[in-house]
Amino acid sequence: MSLMLQEIHEQPDALERTIVAEREKVTRIGDFIRQSDIDLIVLVARGSSDNASLFGRYLLEVTTGIPVSLSAPSVFTLYGAKLRLKRALVIGVSQSGEGTDINLVLDRAKEAGAFTLAITNEPESTMAKIAHEALVIHAGREKSVAATKTYTGQMLYFYMLASAIGDMRLDFHRIPELARGALGLEDEVKAHVERYAFMDQCVVVGRGMNYGNSYELALKLMETCYVVAERFSSADFFHGPLAIVERRFPVIMFGPTGVTRQSNLELLGRLSELHADSLAITNDAEIAKQSSRSLLVPGEMDEFLTPIPFIVPAQLFAAHLSAAKGIDPDAPRSLAKVTKTL
Amino acid sequence: MSLMLQEIHEQPDALERTIVAEREKVTRIGDFIRQSDIDLIVLVARGSSDNASLFGRYLLEVTTGIPVSLSAPSVFTLYGAKLRLKRALVIGVSQSGEGTDINLVLDRAKEAGAFTLAITNEPESTMAKIAHEALVIHAGREKSVAATKTYTGQMLYFYMLASAIGDMRLDFHRIPELARGALGLEDEVKAHVERYAFMDQCVVVGRGMNYGNSYELALKLMETCYVVAERFSSADFFHGPLAIVERRFPVIMFGPTGVTRQSNLELLGRLSELHADSLAITNDAEIAKQSSRSLLVPGEMDEFLTPIPFIVPAQLFAAHLSAAKGIDPDAPRSLAKVTKTL
Repeated sequence: MSLMLQEIHEQPDALERTIVAEREKVTRIGDFIRQSDIDLIVLVARGSSDNASLFGRYLLEVTTGIPVSLSAPSVFTLYGAKLRLKRALVIGVSQSGEGTDINLVLDRAKEAGAFTLAITNEPESTMAKIAHEALVIHAGREKSVAATKTYTGQMLYFYMLASAIGDMRLDFHRIPELARGALGLEDEVKAHVERYAFMDQCVVVGRGMNYGNSYELALKLMETCYVVAERFSSADFFHGPLAIVERRFPVIMFGPTGVTRQSNLELLGRLSELHADSLAITNDAEIAKQSSRSLLVPGEMDEFLTPIPFIVPAQLFAAHLSAAKGIDPDAPRSLAKVTKTL
Repeated sequence: MSLMLQEIHEQPDALERTIVAEREKVTRIGDFIRQSDIDLIVLVARGSSDNASLFGRYLLEVTTGIPVSLSAPSVFTLYGAKLRLKRALVIGVSQSGEGTDINLVLDRAKEAGAFTLAITNEPESTMAKIAHEALVIHAGREKSVAATKTYTGQMLYFYMLASAIGDMRLDFHRIPELARGALGLEDEVKAHVERYAFMDQCVVVGRGMNYGNSYELALKLMETCYVVAERFSSADFFHGPLAIVERRFPVIMFGPTGVTRQSNLELLGRLSELHADSLAITNDAEIAKQSSRSLLVPGEMDEFLTPIPFIVPAQLFAAHLSAAKGIDPDAPRSLAKVTKTL
């Protein structure tokens, strides 16, 4: 079994460990933030961590009402800008905690008077030391080049933070069990994968809480399957990119119940007119019915809880497609685990 | 000649008209913002306008020090969130000014106490009426489905605003002339295009001030040439996506002189090792030399002034490639000019 597959399977336990070990600490940090005059949250990340942050952006804005900005590190690292961040919460997100540019942004943010947090898998990392508080993911060392358990670990922290800062009740303690249920789709995923063995390009769409997942699955398909995978919000997809869709063009959709359902159904209708090939990862019977193929994620969950259970079959899809294409997902060509950028 | 090509050629004059007609107004708005307690700028847009905003984000953060957030409209339209925007400047960017979701976000922002601006081609549009102040692009009605002159018109307004709010001297009055010079590359572009007639996928990269351009060229290639065109910052491209690059894979780079030069040269070196096919749009002799092919944009300009002159040959490339592929760029399959999203 590849390291990637092993680590995908470790996720329910890893998520559980983080909740048990860190819940009190996050509540304490949340109380501090609630009592502060913070009116901006800035998320700083690259790669899969940036995709987790894209999810965090939606969740934090919707649940706390505090505007969120996804940082452009080069504004600090290359252009040397000094931003007004006195009333900002700046959160660095990095598996290794050694991204040079991310750490430089955190340093600058501290100088500017921001309160800083680090979400990382490595408690002894540079990032954990720079930030005022470090939130450690209890997933164990991630050995596969393709991030899986750290991605969901980062997402979990956004749930915990959102619950601690905002007033919305998020049942995140149910997520490990829902993720376990999603792992039960593995045989079904394997059966689907055979059909996509020769796919060389596709589009992945998701919206709102599942927008980050569309970026993450596209990245996994690029790095472990060498598929040219585009990623869009289902809304933006109508602005131009739809023109690339021709007969049998593969589109993978994260399509939960909830507020994005209607626009996803409209997109599926349009894709069906264009004779595209759609695969939905969903918990909604109608979305499953309107797509060419679907993976129905088990368990009762509202839209806010879907992102982690939905990425699990997507990770399995990438790992098994990689194998079906004769690629080793743990050793993608041209890549290294830690990327140093300035 | 296609409407798209006509409108590409109208750009230098359109840019000049906007500067002459609106410079004073923007200076007045800038003075107002400088004296206010605004500590956040939110940009709201979709499609090409969103790509212009991606440029605006870098320019405004670097020149004014005010953090910028690119709005996720569904946070307001689908999730009904109320964000803390009392000290925010919220800028809607839309060619037609009739994007339902963009207008809803502006409405909500006004209710929340934000100061709102509209950047639009249509002075009588809904958006122009909602915003506290409307900044009108003097480009004439845009008839082609593919936005060109409104994209550069929107970018120009970010230069004018940045100059009026921040302290950095930006020689934006030179941009119309530089754009005119870039149009002189048309014959060279045509000669290059023949080689790409059968390209069906590619990657477009740019960084910092030219990051938005990479999104915009990719969008143009998708909508007018049906090419599956990925877009990345040259920095993110090393985080996973590089794995899709194989021998002869086409990569188009916006590679100016200035602070992004070094990382772009490193990427070109890596692409050369992978035997990829690179085409650089550049004003730097070394970047031109290190890429497989290049379009050398004429005229003296520092990095901050490159985005508009650089997108011009890119627009020409898309328009002529569309023709070479036997497509009508004014009538892309599956698309309409105004997209209503909620």
